[in-house]
Amino acid sequence: MESYLTPNELWFVRHHNPVPIIDPNNYKLTVKGKGCKEVTFSLQELQEKFPKHEVDVTIQCSGNRRSHFDGVKKAQGIPWNMGGVSTARFGGARLKDVLEYCGVKDPEKHGINHVQFISQDEMLASIPIEKAFSYSGDVLLAYEMNGEEIPTDHGYPVRAVVPGYVGVRNVKWVKEVFVSEHEAEGPWQRGVAYKGFASNITDLQHLPTHIIERAAPVQEPPVTSLIVHPAHNAKVRSDTLEMKGWAYSGGGRGIVRVEVSIDGGKSWHTAELKEGSEQKLTRAWAWTFWSAHVEIPKELRGKSSEVLCRATDASYNSQPEHASSIWNVRGLCNTAWHRKTVHFD
Amino acid sequence: MESYLTPNELWFVRHHNPVPIIDPNNYKLTVKGKGCKEVTFSLQELQEKFPKHEVDVTIQCSGNRRSHFDGVKKAQGIPWNMGGVSTARFGGARLKDVLEYCGVKDPEKHGINHVQFISQDEMLASIPIEKAFSYSGDVLLAYEMNGEEIPTDHGYPVRAVVPGYVGVRNVKWVKEVFVSEHEAEGPWQRGVAYKGFASNITDLQHLPTHIIERAAPVQEPPVTSLIVHPAHNAKVRSDTLEMKGWAYSGGGRGIVRVEVSIDGGKSWHTAELKEGSEQKLTRAWAWTFWSAHVEIPKELRGKSSEVLCRATDASYNSQPEHASSIWNVRGLCNTAWHRKTVHFD
Repeated sequence: MESYLTPNELWFVRHHNPVPIIDPNNYKLTVKGKGCKEVTFSLQELQEKFPKHEVDVTIQCSGNRRSHFDGVKKAQGIPWNMGGVSTARFGGARLKDVLEYCGVKDPEKHGINHVQFISQDEMLASIPIEKAFSYSGDVLLAYEMNGEEIPTDHGYPVRAVVPGYVGVRNVKWVKEVFVSEHEAEGPWQRGVAYKGFASNITDLQHLPTHIIERAAPVQEPPVTSLIVHPAHNAKVRSDTLEMKGWAYSGGGRGIVRVEVSIDGGKSWHTAELKEGSEQKLTRAWAWTFWSAHVEIPKELRGKSSEVLCRATDASYNSQPEHASSIWNVRGLCNTAWHRKTVHFD
Repeated sequence: MESYLTPNELWFVRHHNPVPIIDPNNYKLTVKGKGCKEVTFSLQELQEKFPKHEVDVTIQCSGNRRSHFDGVKKAQGIPWNMGGVSTARFGGARLKDVLEYCGVKDPEKHGINHVQFISQDEMLASIPIEKAFSYSGDVLLAYEMNGEEIPTDHGYPVRAVVPGYVGVRNVKWVKEVFVSEHEAEGPWQRGVAYKGFASNITDLQHLPTHIIERAAPVQEPPVTSLIVHPAHNAKVRSDTLEMKGWAYSGGGRGIVRVEVSIDGGKSWHTAELKEGSEQKLTRAWAWTFWSAHVEIPKELRGKSSEVLCRATDASYNSQPEHASSIWNVRGLCNTAWHRKTVHFD
């Protein structure tokens, strides 16, 4: 909450293979596939042939808050608390401009359904063509992050930036854009890694193939919000409790409301929406900060209490009350009401 | 549940003024506004100048299930139970094609943010340009419904069909399409009629103007699902309970899962997704039917029990457990888990 854009050196880091070191002079990006002329671009060509487009984007790992599932049942994966999220101003070529340059004009006619991103380290993932080819989808082949070259850890020299999608689709160190009828192969798109299964599935080893195949990969994450201040177990001496946090939803759906409670959910107060609330409700790619000042009633004095927050997005989606209703074996998309305990003096 | 497409004579009817009777020979549609050449089309011109585009669309009143809020607190508006929803195959000109014909090429550059639809009966509403101008948004100026002329009650001769948006934006008897920097004036867009306020707002009469202005109009509805069979208070004599229903989410977000419980939410079963599940997860404009067969355990024999359903959409949004967390004074978007009582013999 120190700054709206996360400084590059503080950005969260998650990768699936060792980080590749790329010489910018030898860097090549190939675009090819169904109904698409094969074209290879140098970094300089990518920067010069297309107008630079800048977008503020929050990228969140879909495993963020995985550890908050532990009260229900242990989930498989890195036990992220709430730090798997950061925001930057990315600059680069619009994917739509690049695809049109390569002759893609009418993706439906050519039966194109997905755009796959293939990384130098052979990681790959895909997004639907509807997102990739929409002028308002703002998908970038980015070469800048907060006004600088993208740092090595974050995908230098070119990273796919897919606003409103979970982290894994924002493929780093992209070497190939592949336009296809099908979504990407591999564990991150078609395997179990980024699929949210039903809560009664607890054993990935014996999961039948047809269940894995039919499950949908996580693309746009659901609406969520978090309390950044106060800290868990904070002691509060003042007459009012100051609360601060952020809220975010996938698909560019802006945050229309954040509500907080300091009495365990019995009464609710509407928080003030701050930075980020000026984004369009249809194209809110970054988080919205919020704050609230709630008077502490006499009956809570000298007691511990649960403080909560919950957000509503532009499609009036809301967060689930309990993690138990959305628990899944891979621990994805934990967006249950955020709860902390505070002690009122 | 008798048929996937609702026959025209069974479609739900909701209008805000008396139904206008329009002579097709005198019908005119005017397109105008910011960065747009003013053009007037006859019905025949609309049909002949643009390719006919067909889309299966579920249209749902955002007040559907308003009556299910009554257990929390009475909401203002028509007390719809669960019948404010129907599905049809609509045919017409794509709004994007019509706008491009009228010279709209780069809406961002012209500062166009919204497309307003104005009806013969002076009802008006608007949608964001991102929806209107996306090739995959599938917005129509429709002149056909289930292969016939659109019936008078449903907007003859031309109705705006905005897939994935709530009923009120699908303006009937359209006479003008107005491209604008601003959303539509009037109670249905900027007033209280279709805005979801926080649950602590209970009095519309004394609501300050700035609160009304800042609230977001309902556009895409959140994910929902309903039990159509069994009926509430049904007596069940068999060994398994057969359940059937539908699920739907706004914004074209396909249904990835429906879960049911016959023991009041203690255990859950994954339902089978039927008709509608073949839709693209990014462009699922119509409902998805589901069914489940759940074995009735011995301990429920001779007892009454609550049966429930809940759905998850392609953005992993889920339904709220209780209506109390989303209650709002206008009674919009009640998507709480659907609950019925059954008696097991």
